[in-house]
Amino acid sequence: MSVNLFDQANELESAIRQSEEFTNLKEMYDAVNSDESAKGIFENFRNIQLSLQQKQMNGEEISQEEIEQAQKTAQLVQQHELIAKLMEAEQRMSMTVQELNKVIMKPLEELYGSMENNNEQ
Amino acid sequence: MSVNLFDQANELESAIRQSEEFTNLKEMYDAVNSDESAKGIFENFRNIQLSLQQKQMNGEEISQEEIEQAQKTAQLVQQHELIAKLMEAEQRMSMTVQELNKVIMKPLEELYGSMENNNEQ
Ligand SMILES: [Ca+2]
Ligand SMILES: [Ca+2]
Repeated sequence: MSVNLFDQANELESAIRQSEEFTNLKEMYDAVNSDESAKGIFENFRNIQLSLQQKQMNGEEISQEEIEQAQKTAQLVQQHELIAKLMEAEQRMSMTVQELNKVIMKPLEELYGSMENNNEQ
Repeated sequence: MSVNLFDQANELESAIRQSEEFTNLKEMYDAVNSDESAKGIFENFRNIQLSLQQKQMNGEEISQEEIEQAQKTAQLVQQHELIAKLMEAEQRMSMTVQELNKVIMKPLEELYGSMENNNEQ
């Protein structure tokens, strides 16, 4: 990889690290992690989400009981202000990453886009 | 999104566009596209790959005949110098994108990594 590519990637990395989106996310994580109750609820919620995702990817069936447990935990999570703020911060960070990727991937988008147009001719 | 984030993403985009990896990929695409025979073989190969991927994602069965057709087309593709070069260029570009992503995503990796360590305590 060329020096310039690597330099630009490092500059963007540093801009992300200093961004409001990232520093806010980090603060919210720290806040949740230093609150035992919030931490427990959040970890429980994450574990249930991960387990359901895993089952979906493996094509396994998800029981009515599991759906209800997931819904109950999601409700608990939404009622917890610290966790709600963390999840909001996560969503903002994730949208920012998507926007950054859209910018960065423009050259490849254009190239593959032009290829598809060629195919249709 | 802050101006600095957006500026840095644009600078990285421009570095990608000017990179040896990308300009080489573009050249190889153009070479394949202006060669009718290469273009046909390559498009056929891509279509077969896409159709097999689709079937796998949908959990559909792939017949012995389809496997053999895919293997035959892959052989044709490898024997075609222009296409082989294009696929090499694609692989280099894809590895570069992966490396860039690894750099850019370091802040988030670190944050989520530290969370996982917290969970294990
Ligand atoms: Ca820069
Ligand atoms: Ca700069």
